[in-house]
Amino acid sequence: MSVSIPVLRDITEANTLLANELRAVFRGRNILVLDLIASPGAGKTTLLERTIGRLNGELRLCVIEGDPTTSIDAERVAAAGAPAVQINTGSGCHLEARMVQAALSQLDVAGADVIIIENVGNLMCPTGWDLGEDAKVVVASLPEGDDKPLKYPMAFSAAQAVVINKIDLEPYVSAKAERLRRNALTINPDLAVFEVSCLTGQGLDGWLDWLRAKLLAKRRTGTG
Amino acid sequence: MSVSIPVLRDITEANTLLANELRAVFRGRNILVLDLIASPGAGKTTLLERTIGRLNGELRLCVIEGDPTTSIDAERVAAAGAPAVQINTGSGCHLEARMVQAALSQLDVAGADVIIIENVGNLMCPTGWDLGEDAKVVVASLPEGDDKPLKYPMAFSAAQAVVINKIDLEPYVSAKAERLRRNALTINPDLAVFEVSCLTGQGLDGWLDWLRAKLLAKRRTGTG
Repeated sequence: MSVSIPVLRDITEANTLLANELRAVFRGRNILVLDLIASPGAGKTTLLERTIGRLNGELRLCVIEGDPTTSIDAERVAAAGAPAVQINTGSGCHLEARMVQAALSQLDVAGADVIIIENVGNLMCPTGWDLGEDAKVVVASLPEGDDKPLKYPMAFSAAQAVVINKIDLEPYVSAKAERLRRNALTINPDLAVFEVSCLTGQGLDGWLDWLRAKLLAKRRTGTG
Repeated sequence: MSVSIPVLRDITEANTLLANELRAVFRGRNILVLDLIASPGAGKTTLLERTIGRLNGELRLCVIEGDPTTSIDAERVAAAGAPAVQINTGSGCHLEARMVQAALSQLDVAGADVIIIENVGNLMCPTGWDLGEDAKVVVASLPEGDDKPLKYPMAFSAAQAVVINKIDLEPYVSAKAERLRRNALTINPDLAVFEVSCLTGQGLDGWLDWLRAKLLAKRRTGTG
């Protein structure tokens, strides 16, 4: 069976067009938008909880949560104090701009400083999809191994920052944060790299300063 | 632009047809075939290294390695003592039957008892692709969190077994192996679940016995 359907390039092109519309909306509102990409369980949601907690009273964050099923993550983020919307993708392996657009209709972003989009846990497929963000940020969990940037280079190439999480586990695993940092910079020398433990709070200051600097740059120049 | 191309269902149907051909070949040779699915860094390759080491002299294993880039995993598996072929998928997020077919042309499977296919590190996309295997096996890393079966149910639904890895880290993380086991069984009550540490070797006996039993069942009945 053969039917006439648009080729894939058209789907991603339509996505990019909509992403650019969203980007213009965000720019008009001076909102910094980040797209968090990681394997399942790398700690994206815990990083969000810590970030919301630490910026409480200083910046207003909103969160768009992507997961195949459940609203576990949106509930955790809401409990941490940020307005959140959950997108369930079902068998969909990444978020698309149209999903972000739909989520925005249910999220009160008036007065928001930052929107963080937590993508579906998948280190590959979200990489090629523009969501209107200012920057993609990879969360890399140390126990996943320090060779991940070499084996999954796309996400590290597309990102502006990498948060190496779970460094508190370094004494118990063979992976080394320094080696992960080096491998990430081999793939993309322009990456900002932060070594953190969302469990203990170690290293979060650098990440938060980067986020503040991005927001200020966006307000000054229109791009994060 | 619109062009006439086959719809996606046809692509997966073609894959399934080829997978069934491969399955017939494997059955004719009495080879058990497993498809390992996991997030990046859950420990698929380390489980392979331990499995090869423990079954050395008892069973002949061959390995087909899938990764976007590098031959790191095939080199590790070959060093552990098993013939291995690396498939690089580039931006491809899962293996397909045609890739397994191509790999088989470069792998000496004469006399092999078991072929283990290590899929691309991705807990979502490999789920729907039949590679001619007897069973899909999920490797779930404990530090990824014990809620992963609830959030990424497809892989757990499609699998016959789950290997919960890195249980040596349980004292240092909030996730609990028992809760991960329970959540996996909630999604799929028929799962065989093993709690192991590929670092210390703890719990591997149950996994190896399951693999031996699958091989014997295949030799007896023609299906693993």
